[in-house]
Amino acid sequence: MSKKNLLVENERNRQDLGFGTKLTDRRKRLLKQDGQFNVKRKGQSFEAWLNIYNRFIIMPWKIFFLIVLLVYLLLNFIFAITYYLIGVEHLIGVNMTSTHSQFWDAFFFSAQSLTTVGYGRISPDGFAASWVSSIESLVGLMMFAIVTGLLYGRFSRPNPRILFSDNALIAPYLNINALMFRMVNERSNQLINMEVSLVFSKIEERNGLPTRRYYGLSLERAKVNFFPTDWTIVHPLTEDSPLYNETPESLAASDAEFMIAIQGVDDTFADAIHVRHSYKAEELVWGAKFTPMVEEDGEEIYILDLKKVGNYRPANLNY
Amino acid sequence: MSKKNLLVENERNRQDLGFGTKLTDRRKRLLKQDGQFNVKRKGQSFEAWLNIYNRFIIMPWKIFFLIVLLVYLLLNFIFAITYYLIGVEHLIGVNMTSTHSQFWDAFFFSAQSLTTVGYGRISPDGFAASWVSSIESLVGLMMFAIVTGLLYGRFSRPNPRILFSDNALIAPYLNINALMFRMVNERSNQLINMEVSLVFSKIEERNGLPTRRYYGLSLERAKVNFFPTDWTIVHPLTEDSPLYNETPESLAASDAEFMIAIQGVDDTFADAIHVRHSYKAEELVWGAKFTPMVEEDGEEIYILDLKKVGNYRPANLNY
Amino acid sequence: MSKKNLLVENERNRQDLGFGTKLTDRRKRLLKQDGQFNVKRKGQSFEAWLNIYNRFIIMPWKIFFLIVLLVYLLLNFIFAITYYLIGVEHLIGVNMTSTHSQFWDAFFFSAQSLTTVGYGRISPDGFAASWVSSIESLVGLMMFAIVTGLLYGRFSRPNPRILFSDNALIAPYLNINALMFRMVNERSNQLINMEVSLVFSKIEERNGLPTRRYYGLSLERAKVNFFPTDWTIVHPLTEDSPLYNETPESLAASDAEFMIAIQGVDDTFADAIHVRHSYKAEELVWGAKFTPMVEEDGEEIYILDLKKVGNYRPANLNY
Amino acid sequence: MSKKNLLVENERNRQDLGFGTKLTDRRKRLLKQDGQFNVKRKGQSFEAWLNIYNRFIIMPWKIFFLIVLLVYLLLNFIFAITYYLIGVEHLIGVNMTSTHSQFWDAFFFSAQSLTTVGYGRISPDGFAASWVSSIESLVGLMMFAIVTGLLYGRFSRPNPRILFSDNALIAPYLNINALMFRMVNERSNQLINMEVSLVFSKIEERNGLPTRRYYGLSLERAKVNFFPTDWTIVHPLTEDSPLYNETPESLAASDAEFMIAIQGVDDTFADAIHVRHSYKAEELVWGAKFTPMVEEDGEEIYILDLKKVGNYRPANLNY
Repeated sequence: MSKKNLLVENERNRQDLGFGTKLTDRRKRLLKQDGQFNVKRKGQSFEAWLNIYNRFIIMPWKIFFLIVLLVYLLLNFIFAITYYLIGVEHLIGVNMTSTHSQFWDAFFFSAQSLTTVGYGRISPDGFAASWVSSIESLVGLMMFAIVTGLLYGRFSRPNPRILFSDNALIAPYLNINALMFRMVNERSNQLINMEVSLVFSKIEERNGLPTRRYYGLSLERAKVNFFPTDWTIVHPLTEDSPLYNETPESLAASDAEFMIAIQGVDDTFADAIHVRHSYKAEELVWGAKFTPMVEEDGEEIYILDLKKVGNYRPANLNY
Repeated sequence: MSKKNLLVENERNRQDLGFGTKLTDRRKRLLKQDGQFNVKRKGQSFEAWLNIYNRFIIMPWKIFFLIVLLVYLLLNFIFAITYYLIGVEHLIGVNMTSTHSQFWDAFFFSAQSLTTVGYGRISPDGFAASWVSSIESLVGLMMFAIVTGLLYGRFSRPNPRILFSDNALIAPYLNINALMFRMVNERSNQLINMEVSLVFSKIEERNGLPTRRYYGLSLERAKVNFFPTDWTIVHPLTEDSPLYNETPESLAASDAEFMIAIQGVDDTFADAIHVRHSYKAEELVWGAKFTPMVEEDGEEIYILDLKKVGNYRPANLNY
Repeated sequence: MSKKNLLVENERNRQDLGFGTKLTDRRKRLLKQDGQFNVKRKGQSFEAWLNIYNRFIIMPWKIFFLIVLLVYLLLNFIFAITYYLIGVEHLIGVNMTSTHSQFWDAFFFSAQSLTTVGYGRISPDGFAASWVSSIESLVGLMMFAIVTGLLYGRFSRPNPRILFSDNALIAPYLNINALMFRMVNERSNQLINMEVSLVFSKIEERNGLPTRRYYGLSLERAKVNFFPTDWTIVHPLTEDSPLYNETPESLAASDAEFMIAIQGVDDTFADAIHVRHSYKAEELVWGAKFTPMVEEDGEEIYILDLKKVGNYRPANLNY
Repeated sequence: MSKKNLLVENERNRQDLGFGTKLTDRRKRLLKQDGQFNVKRKGQSFEAWLNIYNRFIIMPWKIFFLIVLLVYLLLNFIFAITYYLIGVEHLIGVNMTSTHSQFWDAFFFSAQSLTTVGYGRISPDGFAASWVSSIESLVGLMMFAIVTGLLYGRFSRPNPRILFSDNALIAPYLNINALMFRMVNERSNQLINMEVSLVFSKIEERNGLPTRRYYGLSLERAKVNFFPTDWTIVHPLTEDSPLYNETPESLAASDAEFMIAIQGVDDTFADAIHVRHSYKAEELVWGAKFTPMVEEDGEEIYILDLKKVGNYRPANLNY
């Protein structure tokens, strides 16, 4: 193989995962602990920025229902104005005693048309008012068809709740040490075929320039078929580990970050799930091991105490 | 490879599947025969415990419709009280002859608003009553949008019905013996690309402590493209099988369990399906073989008798 | 490796695909040409037999809408009877002139309640009639929520339309011959990541008993990324092909069948699609090759003539 | 291996990707730059041509809502005619003063039935009119169930917005050169597990005939786990690259085309996404490299300027 090809081969074997090497600013964390990326887009088209379906799916429930309510009131207001401009005398049954009562009866008639409840105490009579109310009922049905679609989109979105230990530990493991963190499914539904990948990133000097590099860390067990209890992910600190000679100080100095990507399947719906997490150097605890989460108290069932996911106790490391 | 790495390698090669080694209580079965895990969560957040969409999807149909009915009645009751407090004189058409008739007319008006049927015999007149009924119709539409979403979620949930033989058999196979169990798709829709994995778990003494260990069992055929009739899963008891020297007594003594995980694709919807099952030592029959399920009675079509999935007859084992 | 293991190894390497070896009746075709299996289930539970969601999804549109209409009429009939039994005098506005008119007004009132149109010409007044109509509107909304879910299930079901050539050909190929068949996507939407597997099945004498055996046939190209035009699937008849020494007569005598399983992805919805097809020995044409389907007529666009998918012309085979 | 098998082996190793070798017309581009194929189908069945669900999903929103409006008006018109033919005297409340007013009241009554708003100012009285309005309300509910399904289908369709650089570059890379193009996700939602494959196609003389051939191009990095910023896809021009000896002139002369297929997963919904793109020889820039898109301006967050995806500056190639 020629020298040229060797260089190419080296580059090919480098692990990048999609972050690139140019993002080297030490103060900035690329992958936030909630699994979001610390990147903002500029120059998006309006449509891409709006991304309206996505926004309606991921917004909190309170905001979602508030927007539905506001749109409902706004539509009623617009149609009420329209009936008022056409002339409320074309709405049979409107209380004509005052402008105030006329407007509000138009408003309530609008609400009765939009929701298709149509009591009939107020009903359209003239040509224009009848046309507008025909359209309004269609608009109402469209709006509720849209809301139905959005609601199902929100329901069916895979939304796993994985709890992670607050800290990653450097713990004794067999007769060496290992990097460990622990996770557990907070929900009672089963997650299966779980796979985890762990990437170690730090800033290194290359040709005198600080460059962020990425290293995949091999795991004792990267895949499990079932995930009924807790799972401690273990990267053994063997001689070939990129962490073998690291110290708390060297990790802090090189702005080290451990990035975790998890995928699996939600057993109830057979939906794929994807979860990300990360630990920074300062979230590592050196010389500790996790304490058990499962209680064996003599009952017929295993008890898993979720609040203990981050619990650890000091432990002497192997040297 | 150093001694350290060998230990790591051993650990890496151990098959765990996500159960961990600390759950050793003999009286407890981890994977129940219905495919559920025998684990209870403690300390869940309210939201994770509620897991409301999941619950509405997996509950029985009777409970689902009962809850819909109760929510409907409850909402009507709440709105009826509200109209009553506002004053039923603001609902035109209410039968004012008694408190009883007033309340029930408010209740029926509420039902007519919530469902948007709005006959109009009773209709709101005052400002407050009109506002409440405007909101009630919106609430009704939201409620039915939610129910529509839940219904589709229930419909579209992959829900395979795989029948398993009641027993796993130790049966003669070629010139040795094999562990066998049989399964069949109860439904007429096709399952394709089926994969099965079989894990043998037992309690062993390690360093004087009882520890549950897991062993993957190799299968004669772990994957089939089609699954139109019955499928007998076969683990040959060759010399390298973890079961090679086991006896009925040793399996019972070590609290042996055979755990099965199946995945495939439902051909109608191209949905992934996942099924789990397990056999305990006492569900094994030694010296038996399954009898055929397919009838060949001269018709133009093969007849598959599902009730025979567990049928077997005695057979001499090879030694 | 011991003799025992060799037998096991042979069995393991046999290709079965899920059909089993016991189905040997020559008159019966296991995989029908429309991709359905020729198997009938006996002893299904009522629920598995009903398989109601599945049936509603795969039934023809005409049947689907007919059932919706019949259920609508049936529900109206049942509720009309109920109102009649309660007493139509509790429905204000009913035409009391005859039993006939009373029943039909109860029926139309029922329809107006079930669809929630609720004109109000007829409206409930008494306690019992009001309760029944409250429930009927709820039933109506549930029914339409169910229909909405079924409609979306029908819409979103992957339903590819792949056209196959009527015949598989034994055609000259390079300097040997090959088994070929041709397929094309009838729809204009793109299918991508297509994979095809081809299985040859025939009845052989084993230990004096006729036994159906299955052989995978290697393909010149088993996977394509894109499928914009036609695709001719080619199994070269090399010396290691299970078909190498077969003749039209030997194939007919051994009840040969070629089974095809195709999977891919519909580009519009990213849905997985699965298609099956089969050719029997009598559907083979020896000494022919497919004629082109793509017309190059000087326009800016390629024209694919779907009706030509099965067109072939005689061709001399290589020997 | 015999000579026959060698020929077969060669054919097997050729990369075709599903395009076939017969499409050689130089003026026609097979894969258009928007990812669509330049192929038109002839002889489709009406149903396959109609492909109605697909059309309703991919049509622009304006067209979609316009069709809903037109169908609504058309249905109202048809039912209005029906009521008119039955006799509007069977619709209580119709303004009988003129044929014009009779028709429009029938029309508005129809709209009130179809949307199930049913004010009741106009209501059916006779047998025929009551039957028609019962059916109309059912039709209306079916129509809105269909629209709800279509809306959700439109919402949930994976619809990634990947921006590509206008040009592919031949850029210096390590100590050789490479073919490069750049892409970025315009939306803020995360795309994960991205895979890219790149195919080079050109017309070659084979046996004196022009034939289009396809070559897969190996990439420095064909898969990334995350895609938070921009991704420059790199094909190194090593000695074994099919592009190694190409020049701008030779590529233009052989009608070269670079076809790109990308797949990944949308993190929000765990939906698979598929994107295609292509560059023609004239869209290549020789001797240039991309300029950075990420701004590091001292803020807490990385800024990605999407408008710069195609920006490049001249660069000397390595020879």
